[in-house]
Amino acid sequence: MRQDDVPSFFDVRMRGFRDRAEVEQVLALLRQRLRPRPAEMVSVRDAAGRVLAGDVVAAVAVPAFDRAAMDGYALQALETFGASAYNPMEFAIAGEALPGQAFPGKLRPGQAVRIMTGAPLPEGADAVLQAEAAEENRGRLRVSDAVPPGRHVGHRGEDVEEGAVVLGSGRVLRPQDLGVLASIGAAPIAVVRRPRVALLITGNELLPCGSKPEGYRIIDSNSVMLDALVRRDGGLPEAAQLLADGYEVVRAALIAADADVILMSGGSSVGKEDHAPRVLAEVGELSFHGMALRPASPAGVGFIDNRPVFLLPGNPVSCLSAYDFFAGPAIRRLGGRSMDWPYRCVTLPLDRKIVSAIGRVDYVRVQIRDGRVEPLATSGASILTSTTRADGFVIVARDSEGVAAGQPVQVFLYDERSDRT
Amino acid sequence: MRQDDVPSFFDVRMRGFRDRAEVEQVLALLRQRLRPRPAEMVSVRDAAGRVLAGDVVAAVAVPAFDRAAMDGYALQALETFGASAYNPMEFAIAGEALPGQAFPGKLRPGQAVRIMTGAPLPEGADAVLQAEAAEENRGRLRVSDAVPPGRHVGHRGEDVEEGAVVLGSGRVLRPQDLGVLASIGAAPIAVVRRPRVALLITGNELLPCGSKPEGYRIIDSNSVMLDALVRRDGGLPEAAQLLADGYEVVRAALIAADADVILMSGGSSVGKEDHAPRVLAEVGELSFHGMALRPASPAGVGFIDNRPVFLLPGNPVSCLSAYDFFAGPAIRRLGGRSMDWPYRCVTLPLDRKIVSAIGRVDYVRVQIRDGRVEPLATSGASILTSTTRADGFVIVARDSEGVAAGQPVQVFLYDERSDRT
Repeated sequence: MRQDDVPSFFDVRMRGFRDRAEVEQVLALLRQRLRPRPAEMVSVRDAAGRVLAGDVVAAVAVPAFDRAAMDGYALQALETFGASAYNPMEFAIAGEALPGQAFPGKLRPGQAVRIMTGAPLPEGADAVLQAEAAEENRGRLRVSDAVPPGRHVGHRGEDVEEGAVVLGSGRVLRPQDLGVLASIGAAPIAVVRRPRVALLITGNELLPCGSKPEGYRIIDSNSVMLDALVRRDGGLPEAAQLLADGYEVVRAALIAADADVILMSGGSSVGKEDHAPRVLAEVGELSFHGMALRPASPAGVGFIDNRPVFLLPGNPVSCLSAYDFFAGPAIRRLGGRSMDWPYRCVTLPLDRKIVSAIGRVDYVRVQIRDGRVEPLATSGASILTSTTRADGFVIVARDSEGVAAGQPVQVFLYDERSDRT
Repeated sequence: MRQDDVPSFFDVRMRGFRDRAEVEQVLALLRQRLRPRPAEMVSVRDAAGRVLAGDVVAAVAVPAFDRAAMDGYALQALETFGASAYNPMEFAIAGEALPGQAFPGKLRPGQAVRIMTGAPLPEGADAVLQAEAAEENRGRLRVSDAVPPGRHVGHRGEDVEEGAVVLGSGRVLRPQDLGVLASIGAAPIAVVRRPRVALLITGNELLPCGSKPEGYRIIDSNSVMLDALVRRDGGLPEAAQLLADGYEVVRAALIAADADVILMSGGSSVGKEDHAPRVLAEVGELSFHGMALRPASPAGVGFIDNRPVFLLPGNPVSCLSAYDFFAGPAIRRLGGRSMDWPYRCVTLPLDRKIVSAIGRVDYVRVQIRDGRVEPLATSGASILTSTTRADGFVIVARDSEGVAAGQPVQVFLYDERSDRT
């Protein structure tokens, strides 16, 4: 196993890997070396889904005053005691209180104030009688039930107390969090900066997305896929660069890339034109090359100036798998997010056995049919449609020879939600 | 119960609702009246998370040619038969094939071609010997194992067959779907147009998000929350408009709004300044007003020119609840998405009983502690922090008096992912 502090380089081209890194070992290194990026300030409006870089403390109470929690009549609860359908009590309506517009005076005995939800409670009142429970007639209010003190009153600070931590560091902001931040008058807030991600796509055979395939040239499918994956994980993808194969081109691109994370697709394996691992070892560190993982075994991970570099195989399924196993967790960690899988899980019985080799992790695309998990027959690393026909994937652990039919397995679902009508 | 085809209007102001609509009844009307919006064309790069408006058929096969699935040597399998470690066979290396760059000639007997993954298979070859399994020396290849025909060859159309439906109408596009669309050379593709959503926020007491609360004025928290919720559901929120209370203002705003969906927050209840229901009944249809739901009972649903209008209570928790029960499903349906809840679910035992009233649905905020579900004590409709302290919510059905401690309950989780480190 290659150590990240020993920058030895074994040229695997046309020879194959001597040994392969364990997935957990790679993740442990990433966890150890990567820390959330520094903060930047964004307005509350733009903060949905961002990650708080520090605790947010309320400088004010919400609400800042006692208020009506119901449309109705503000009054002194004590004065309603004894009221009933047989013995209704009458109050004089002294005026009204609207949200943002207080009743100007002080409530005197025998008086009530018409009040709307959210309006400040008039001085002298301590309860609100619900509109539906009273009868108003020519300036008089008829009350036929006693109201306890405090009824339908929202007290100062009932939502947020002054000085309280309303949201903690590391929080991924929900829609309602923005509401709370707005309500305390939060100025721009500190969130973890999104990691910028360079997408370097190598391959003489590639035409850019949007072209038609022609002759022996195929369309680059990895850049659009990686772009969407990086966004999903809270990263900011830069425009993809299509690069020709070749030592100098790869070297120049890796040196020039100044993003926080570098993804390079293609040229990572043991082929003659696979220069990326050697170049990375020369211009930075090649921590791991060759993974005990299928597909995606010809992946590499390293660093340039402590910025992580992921060498992703050009085969699209391997590219997806290597991204999701290694690059995705790194991007999420830099963005202050969890390194855990971003997929929902279900546990269901396996319909047909999965065979795996001990010593490597398998990424098996599956469909779910009638509550049972069916591994897809077509599963080559180049068959990207295996990941579009699949509902998700099963991970077979490295110490497993596979899973027998009928056994429950955990399926990671590709769709974030069950969003299909 | 009010019918959507009977535009009768009962003024509930300061009197209360006569009857309340069932949640399911409202959703049934929305499902019946709303259809996905028409298509628009977007480039594959911009299509992540969008919804396909029609089936996508591949005009080409992927790959368009037989190719190597491995780095190694292309040869005629039959010629390796009988090769073993004791009886290695030798081949002359006739040249090489790279991705996008075919071997120019035809393979002759006794020849092999150095080939990289993805390169077109030379004419006359029918298998690829893995690089690691061969020995190359001064233009000669030493083979010590027989290779079966077809080994490590990716056949024309193995990923996508010409004429195949690669992705079906209604599909929410995954990252890898973009890769497949790129690989078949898909031009801009037809996706369901995102519904534009107007955000009309009423309330004299409101100051815009970004201000500090002052005196009896509070900050509008609903617009930033609704903006994020609409985006989550695939809608395009317009800039929020802050409106004063008042019949004329509300009427003018509802008439002027030309979005596909109109959300109006505040002014929906039974207070004196609650003009929205009357105005909607006048300028369009008020299908339902008053819901058998807590919080959010003073919500309304109607239409103007068949465009749905949601009257959301101003209290922020009611606003969130009314949005999620009614407006969210409508926006998702217009965008071609599922009307189902967009939240992940877990089923866990209840720690402390929940009391509910028969005849209304309850939206109960809960925390999950040590695998048990705890209802939050503070749960007023104005306490927005109840939805930020909560991990999610439990829905108590209308025919239930509540749930006993120890019973399993389904919790809808506010966080899309378990994204906290």
